[in-house]
Amino acid sequence: MGKLLGFLLIFSSLFISLVAAGDWNILNQKRRNGVGSSSSLKNYCESWRINVEVNNIRGFDVVPQECVEYIKKYMTSSQYKADSERAIEEVKLYLSSCCTVKGDGKDAWIFDVDDTLLSTVPYYKKQGFGGEKLNSTSLEAWMKESKAPALEHTLKLFHEIKDVGFKIFLVSSRKETLRSSTVDNLIKVGYHGWKTLILRGLEDEFMEVQRYKSKARQHLVNEGHRIWGIIGDQWSSFEGTPSAERTFKLPNSIYYLA
Amino acid sequence: MGKLLGFLLIFSSLFISLVAAGDWNILNQKRRNGVGSSSSLKNYCESWRINVEVNNIRGFDVVPQECVEYIKKYMTSSQYKADSERAIEEVKLYLSSCCTVKGDGKDAWIFDVDDTLLSTVPYYKKQGFGGEKLNSTSLEAWMKESKAPALEHTLKLFHEIKDVGFKIFLVSSRKETLRSSTVDNLIKVGYHGWKTLILRGLEDEFMEVQRYKSKARQHLVNEGHRIWGIIGDQWSSFEGTPSAERTFKLPNSIYYLA
Repeated sequence: MGKLLGFLLIFSSLFISLVAAGDWNILNQKRRNGVGSSSSLKNYCESWRINVEVNNIRGFDVVPQECVEYIKKYMTSSQYKADSERAIEEVKLYLSSCCTVKGDGKDAWIFDVDDTLLSTVPYYKKQGFGGEKLNSTSLEAWMKESKAPALEHTLKLFHEIKDVGFKIFLVSSRKETLRSSTVDNLIKVGYHGWKTLILRGLEDEFMEVQRYKSKARQHLVNEGHRIWGIIGDQWSSFEGTPSAERTFKLPNSIYYLA
Repeated sequence: MGKLLGFLLIFSSLFISLVAAGDWNILNQKRRNGVGSSSSLKNYCESWRINVEVNNIRGFDVVPQECVEYIKKYMTSSQYKADSERAIEEVKLYLSSCCTVKGDGKDAWIFDVDDTLLSTVPYYKKQGFGGEKLNSTSLEAWMKESKAPALEHTLKLFHEIKDVGFKIFLVSSRKETLRSSTVDNLIKVGYHGWKTLILRGLEDEFMEVQRYKSKARQHLVNEGHRIWGIIGDQWSSFEGTPSAERTFKLPNSIYYLA
């Protein structure tokens, strides 16, 4: 009986030690993630991201190496979803009172394609989440597979905007050679009924994205269109003249198109 | 001996229970803070903030009640500091290669005053951090006390920009009646050597801030100035024409000036 109790005592002490050690590890881990150097790194990467979003940091080639993990977390997080959804909600709020749609076919709305209608996150998941310099060949090969998923909230909004009576123009920096794969992809995930898909022809390829997109808008305005809104994930989709009545920025901290 | 062991066994079991219970509580608490409803609220408020920062959410009167605590935390956090500092670093990067300063006195740089040069956070600390509708009388009474602290990183940058040879213009939506208190405050915390402090006269008071600030820039351009940069915490400091070569957005989620 004494031996049994002794055994139980040793066993339970061991159990105490294990629980206590486990607890300690959890607490230490929380501390490492919450304050100190990790926190500074989190501060640093979050500052990098917010300054990209507000267009203070421009023209980056790659995500800073030390922030790749942070950006990966963000771009696959509920926060990224919430941020996108909130932007879309603000579009709906604007739509509820913004525009007198005349029904003459001249009320225009512009969308970006990548990371606005379609997500390139599955591609960047395999390509180091913006931490590696863009390999256009491999990105275009992926685009040719036409398997980019839709951004669900933009998809719903797309049809709402169309139903109001706007003509939808897709202005993308994808090349002309990707036209059929892009159309296939868009239709497969539920987009249909846009008026024109504008892609970069050979003569536009050496032009800055911002200039190419301004030129596309100028062309629409010359045709008599009124551009009520642009939804995009890049500032180069909004800047320059002519502009739109309103622009809406979706989050994207993986790449920058100048 | 058997009794002693029995006592020890009971004692250690009790200890196990306490540790386990404690551990459980810690874990549960972490869970409550990390996911579920608190996390949704954090997601929600962070989305609100980021969409304010990128100018998707415009013209809000008050910070949403449920986010006042979150905004208070952010505006007094190391993250707010890091975000501001990173913006200032980007200005320095731009400065290192942006501009040919001709020395004819026409190279201009524009700063906002509130929450760009001076912090109003001490005022909002006492006024519910943007959760209460702005009381202009009480805000102006506080401004008249001239005790707003400097934003330290902007202060250093201000002098660096001046030393490069830019003429500095302060374009603020503060009223003319606050001129002497504003000058007092600026000098007290270390700002000096700006060229002109532009405040809102009676005729500008009924004008939108964005229009008033464009008008001020137009006046500078008419005088032959080249506007190389604007640093501000409000989009209304950048929008409209004429614009600047570059604009830099500092964070501010307490109030919105349309």
